[in-house]
Amino acid sequence: MQFLEEDVGQGDITTKLIVPKGTLAKAVVVAKSPCVLAGIEEVSVLWEALGLKVRPLKKDGEEAKAGEVVLEVEGDASAILSSERTALNLLTRMCGIATKTRRFVNMLKEAGIEGVKIACTRKTGPGLMYFDKKAVEVGGGDTHRLHLDDMVLIKDNHLRVAGGVEQALKLVESSSFSKKIEIEVTKPEDALKAAELGADIVMLDNMSVEDARKAIELLASRGLRDKVLVEISGGICEDNLLDYASLKPDVISVGSLTKYPDPVDLSLEIVEVTRISS
Amino acid sequence: MQFLEEDVGQGDITTKLIVPKGTLAKAVVVAKSPCVLAGIEEVSVLWEALGLKVRPLKKDGEEAKAGEVVLEVEGDASAILSSERTALNLLTRMCGIATKTRRFVNMLKEAGIEGVKIACTRKTGPGLMYFDKKAVEVGGGDTHRLHLDDMVLIKDNHLRVAGGVEQALKLVESSSFSKKIEIEVTKPEDALKAAELGADIVMLDNMSVEDARKAIELLASRGLRDKVLVEISGGICEDNLLDYASLKPDVISVGSLTKYPDPVDLSLEIVEVTRISS
Amino acid sequence: MQFLEEDVGQGDITTKLIVPKGTLAKAVVVAKSPCVLAGIEEVSVLWEALGLKVRPLKKDGEEAKAGEVVLEVEGDASAILSSERTALNLLTRMCGIATKTRRFVNMLKEAGIEGVKIACTRKTGPGLMYFDKKAVEVGGGDTHRLHLDDMVLIKDNHLRVAGGVEQALKLVESSSFSKKIEIEVTKPEDALKAAELGADIVMLDNMSVEDARKAIELLASRGLRDKVLVEISGGICEDNLLDYASLKPDVISVGSLTKYPDPVDLSLEIVEVTRISS
Amino acid sequence: MQFLEEDVGQGDITTKLIVPKGTLAKAVVVAKSPCVLAGIEEVSVLWEALGLKVRPLKKDGEEAKAGEVVLEVEGDASAILSSERTALNLLTRMCGIATKTRRFVNMLKEAGIEGVKIACTRKTGPGLMYFDKKAVEVGGGDTHRLHLDDMVLIKDNHLRVAGGVEQALKLVESSSFSKKIEIEVTKPEDALKAAELGADIVMLDNMSVEDARKAIELLASRGLRDKVLVEISGGICEDNLLDYASLKPDVISVGSLTKYPDPVDLSLEIVEVTRISS
Amino acid sequence: MQFLEEDVGQGDITTKLIVPKGTLAKAVVVAKSPCVLAGIEEVSVLWEALGLKVRPLKKDGEEAKAGEVVLEVEGDASAILSSERTALNLLTRMCGIATKTRRFVNMLKEAGIEGVKIACTRKTGPGLMYFDKKAVEVGGGDTHRLHLDDMVLIKDNHLRVAGGVEQALKLVESSSFSKKIEIEVTKPEDALKAAELGADIVMLDNMSVEDARKAIELLASRGLRDKVLVEISGGICEDNLLDYASLKPDVISVGSLTKYPDPVDLSLEIVEVTRISS
Amino acid sequence: MQFLEEDVGQGDITTKLIVPKGTLAKAVVVAKSPCVLAGIEEVSVLWEALGLKVRPLKKDGEEAKAGEVVLEVEGDASAILSSERTALNLLTRMCGIATKTRRFVNMLKEAGIEGVKIACTRKTGPGLMYFDKKAVEVGGGDTHRLHLDDMVLIKDNHLRVAGGVEQALKLVESSSFSKKIEIEVTKPEDALKAAELGADIVMLDNMSVEDARKAIELLASRGLRDKVLVEISGGICEDNLLDYASLKPDVISVGSLTKYPDPVDLSLEIVEVTRISS
Repeated sequence: MQFLEEDVGQGDITTKLIVPKGTLAKAVVVAKSPCVLAGIEEVSVLWEALGLKVRPLKKDGEEAKAGEVVLEVEGDASAILSSERTALNLLTRMCGIATKTRRFVNMLKEAGIEGVKIACTRKTGPGLMYFDKKAVEVGGGDTHRLHLDDMVLIKDNHLRVAGGVEQALKLVESSSFSKKIEIEVTKPEDALKAAELGADIVMLDNMSVEDARKAIELLASRGLRDKVLVEISGGICEDNLLDYASLKPDVISVGSLTKYPDPVDLSLEIVEVTRISS
Repeated sequence: MQFLEEDVGQGDITTKLIVPKGTLAKAVVVAKSPCVLAGIEEVSVLWEALGLKVRPLKKDGEEAKAGEVVLEVEGDASAILSSERTALNLLTRMCGIATKTRRFVNMLKEAGIEGVKIACTRKTGPGLMYFDKKAVEVGGGDTHRLHLDDMVLIKDNHLRVAGGVEQALKLVESSSFSKKIEIEVTKPEDALKAAELGADIVMLDNMSVEDARKAIELLASRGLRDKVLVEISGGICEDNLLDYASLKPDVISVGSLTKYPDPVDLSLEIVEVTRISS
Repeated sequence: MQFLEEDVGQGDITTKLIVPKGTLAKAVVVAKSPCVLAGIEEVSVLWEALGLKVRPLKKDGEEAKAGEVVLEVEGDASAILSSERTALNLLTRMCGIATKTRRFVNMLKEAGIEGVKIACTRKTGPGLMYFDKKAVEVGGGDTHRLHLDDMVLIKDNHLRVAGGVEQALKLVESSSFSKKIEIEVTKPEDALKAAELGADIVMLDNMSVEDARKAIELLASRGLRDKVLVEISGGICEDNLLDYASLKPDVISVGSLTKYPDPVDLSLEIVEVTRISS
Repeated sequence: MQFLEEDVGQGDITTKLIVPKGTLAKAVVVAKSPCVLAGIEEVSVLWEALGLKVRPLKKDGEEAKAGEVVLEVEGDASAILSSERTALNLLTRMCGIATKTRRFVNMLKEAGIEGVKIACTRKTGPGLMYFDKKAVEVGGGDTHRLHLDDMVLIKDNHLRVAGGVEQALKLVESSSFSKKIEIEVTKPEDALKAAELGADIVMLDNMSVEDARKAIELLASRGLRDKVLVEISGGICEDNLLDYASLKPDVISVGSLTKYPDPVDLSLEIVEVTRISS
Repeated sequence: MQFLEEDVGQGDITTKLIVPKGTLAKAVVVAKSPCVLAGIEEVSVLWEALGLKVRPLKKDGEEAKAGEVVLEVEGDASAILSSERTALNLLTRMCGIATKTRRFVNMLKEAGIEGVKIACTRKTGPGLMYFDKKAVEVGGGDTHRLHLDDMVLIKDNHLRVAGGVEQALKLVESSSFSKKIEIEVTKPEDALKAAELGADIVMLDNMSVEDARKAIELLASRGLRDKVLVEISGGICEDNLLDYASLKPDVISVGSLTKYPDPVDLSLEIVEVTRISS
Repeated sequence: MQFLEEDVGQGDITTKLIVPKGTLAKAVVVAKSPCVLAGIEEVSVLWEALGLKVRPLKKDGEEAKAGEVVLEVEGDASAILSSERTALNLLTRMCGIATKTRRFVNMLKEAGIEGVKIACTRKTGPGLMYFDKKAVEVGGGDTHRLHLDDMVLIKDNHLRVAGGVEQALKLVESSSFSKKIEIEVTKPEDALKAAELGADIVMLDNMSVEDARKAIELLASRGLRDKVLVEISGGICEDNLLDYASLKPDVISVGSLTKYPDPVDLSLEIVEVTRISS
């Protein structure tokens, strides 16, 4: 609703002038390019809050073909016209993210790789973390941390302040028993050190495939592979995804899922107009 | 600040554990890929509100090379670490939009075309209209309408409700004298009709180059070309920009400026840590 | 609703003590003096949000005679009593403004003057711009700018900063093509200069009838009268309205419409009380 | 600040275009008509919150002559220009109310009448109760109830629901010991009854001077005049104020103080502009 | 609702995982210890706002035995589970306060003491004044001041600033006629002085029973006992309540009513689960 | 600040009347009973936001003796007086919670029991979760979950909906890898089952000491004691704390820490008043 306010200002003057009170309309939302749907629930909530009747023809997570009608909305014509852009902007972004996520998930599936999750990062649109992460989930990915208080995640800049892996892990020992502890490492030996010191998750950050393999083998050789989750992160794209995935980490996180959603296109078309006497 | 709250939840627990009170840090924001800067002002406001000292080395609108430091921030280490992601997400998006806008603007300049403005549309990130449009402006583009009450803009769905160009323009006659009236048309004849009926701006929507040329010639032949502004919109990309621009419209609007920003990359790096006794 | 909160504090203790739970009432709003109605829609929204049933007998824009019932409201007696003052304060102000506006509009009509709009200014009650301007519109006036970003309006203090009419108009050349440009001038020659430099609207501010006439004739003599809208503003009252209107400007703006609404009186009277067992 | 937001929308585009960053200005607020000042404190708070330096030359409650400078404000020129209208609208309203209040208070003083307070009612501008009542206080009046939970005040519509004076007073017996109880009566006998039943304040509502005199004499004859405060309300204007005041009630309340403030005029004038290099 | 937001964060992940969409549940709230009920209304409002159907079996103010079901709630299982803790926390606190208040009130009743009210103070939970005072009222106590603007209450620190009882009472003479004036005194003579100077209420603060008796006798001896309300405050507990009450003050205020509510226990139990196809 | 608004309403009228503008004061906060301090930081933030100078003499987490001054505050006398109650209410609650927490923590220490954490639950004051949990942390306890999205915690009512321990754990398998999974069990065998099915934490809820011992022994016998954290919860008080602690669980959670804080007392005393000419 806040999105809508931003857009409308003090009133949609065009619609007010063009559409007489008491005008009803029926509109359809059409996918103009093939996509995985996400945001259907969110725009339904938006439109229902405006008193409109919404009939989704497809659910979040399902695929739509180009030209397919995915949702019908019916009611006060002014309400539909004034919220059109807001709804489409939200829907387009969420579908774009879900579509990209699904693509990455399917690449693993098609390669026969199991047990490796695709996750997003916190590189989302500003103010859009909730919606972006929801779309990732709908697309089949893992949402990772939502807030900075969700888990303890020690990153490069934290290490610079703490002075190193050992010092950092020591400092977080007093955290609540209810949180997991993850640490970002850039060298295979540090992965080992982190696991030995009790980290729950070790993130191999910006490592080459070779280094990542070495890190995982080191963990295995000390019998620690089962004690920690391994996450690979940094520079993952379609070209190298399968190389990293073949190392069988627990998680591969991909910043571009929410930074550069797939270009999908949806539009809203009024298909019926009726007038009632006020 | 709202963006920050979204991100932080009830507190950045990692930073709280790692960084002792009274730790100061100095960090730099580095452009990892060449880009046009935008959002420097906005993140400065954010960081200053957190009590940090900000020293921009480049201004919004200037270009940065890969590897160049664009801004220094100094102060409480916790504040820097907790706001890092929020600031970078905002900066990355705004730079991406400004960079793309500048590219389009420069294409016209290099082709020697003058008097044609590049504008964005309202296809922005949800909730991000202000920031997205600001970035377009910084990149050298025109922001078009900000709110639905900025001007009267009659679009396809309005025409469906009104019944046609004539009916629609008649209905908006009673609007305040302080607003401009723009109408979207899809056929050359309708451009003529709209101009005759007093529209201030005629938008040629999704027309082929041929049709757009016809519309503009029609206007010229009736001596109306100087009476209206002509905007071309719909499906504009790098491949066809110059074809449309050669028709010398007043404005070309490009949805993808804010829908698919250029992929630019910036990072924050702590370069100095000092401790003061509390 | 915010208005209501302001008034009620932590609860209307009198009503709570006097009115047992489960008491229903029917009340009427009576015009105690003749007036043009405005705000009927707004108080209906307020009361419906409180769960009351509202039956307007007159619409916004219609006239009411002294003693006439304009609206019935029915439901929980406590809700009616606690919101009485809030609703009447809003209604009285809006009716007072609409009544005054209508009076000015009718003066022109009765004098046979056409094509001249009566507009209000931004001299509204603090925090009441939306309601005051809505009432002007209901009364038949033009709302002028709503926000400071609605159009470019260069006023006396802007001219002092810019250094003059020419400098100011030069500075605003880079504004978005979607906005009109208006400039305030105090000398007939400046009106001409402004029109020549491309202003969309020229406001003759605090000019005598003689000077205003001179300004308009100057514009006509150069063939510019049709290229700009002319607005007359400053010190307009019932005594001089027709003198200025006879010059056939496009707009006459009147600050007192919203600064000193006509004194109208409305009251709410409980006409029926019933009790239901809780 | 909320008032300012309402006015500014997403930015004062004129000021942004006209005033280069780093422009400083000094402006004065001038009383254009004689008035009692009120709101000087409030606009000072507003302007200081915008980072401006404010130097009041007169205090709230003092009188200003036509042409007198009452306040200087200095700092960022954009901030001054963008907040000009908001500040003046607030100041004008508050001065108008204080001026009217002072006039009524002085009428009593000049007639040598002591011990009678002039109070306002809750007929304020919508959303403006705090500011309107503050202005009454500054003018020398009594603010009466601020919120509906300030005291128990039984009005006509409450009496209709309760069934009469006796029933109503019985119902409020259980109210907190910390609140006063006031009741509105329209017949002299009811004033007596109310005092006998323990009301702290009796309001003689819309009574003729004759009836009001009768009510007060009745109270005196039973030795109750000292036990209750007497308030006279309804239709009080300059013409009848002294007649009612001569009856020596404790309070006379006047709705028009806040409903129809005196027409006063103040303006802001930029008197100095300087530029600093950014 | 704000309480709920605080609790839920960005979503109750357990409930989301465990409870399929379209699951309905019926739950009961059970008193696990005997108590006076309070907050039934408040949690009903909360749950109805979440779309749940609430059926209270007991009303606020009634007593519940251990094991008794006091309320049924039915509807979407997720909504019930996510709001369980929020609702119980509110209910438990309010019942604890009402139970303690009722106990104090009953002690007076059983001792045959009439005309003495039990009141709370402003020593409430932070942010909980409304709920705490409501619970006191439900328990049979007096809520005393709700806000700092409800009455004039001169406390010890005010006296330190003013310089003494006389000076302080002089300073508050100009307060609105609509407010009562109360003053805190610590010596019997000051009680007399305050009453002579026109205070409406005299609070005997932290006096021994002996001193309080002396103060009240002093007032009586000067014929002032009926002119003022006497409140006893400070260190009142079950052990000394009757001693103070036997002096027949008008009010005894007890800070611990809201500071240390009685330990009562309530729980929510799901008693029925049904699934509907979505 | 929100707490302050709640308390002050539209202004502290007593302070306004008693304290002339420009009065400065110095006050001290005194512990009237021995306590562990908490909330010093929070009230410092509050008071500094009001422009006051705060000098803490003790830090959060330190102990104060009866009579000891813990903090000095200095500045505008009105600001101190108007915020006195708000600050003390917050401080008293937080100190009460920290004091109780410390007492429980010390009991373990004195008994020589190591490696067992004392945690609070979500049974906090309504709306006070942040402050209550902060106070527990200051007292030496563990804050457990802050929000419902912090971890997956399957409680009794979830089990009723899911149908049992196995079904529930199966349902949460798809939760994000970044969250821990805890489950509440009431029978020793269920503890075993939960650990075998992969729960990270097993909560023994309302078990007798005997049953809790049995559960822990079962886990040990299957070599699972090191794979899960064991939390004991429900009915823990000073009388049985050591019995349960001797079983060496990882965590003992105690609802009464935040439900029934220790009764501590703090007061604010003005110690110096000075006047400056305004």
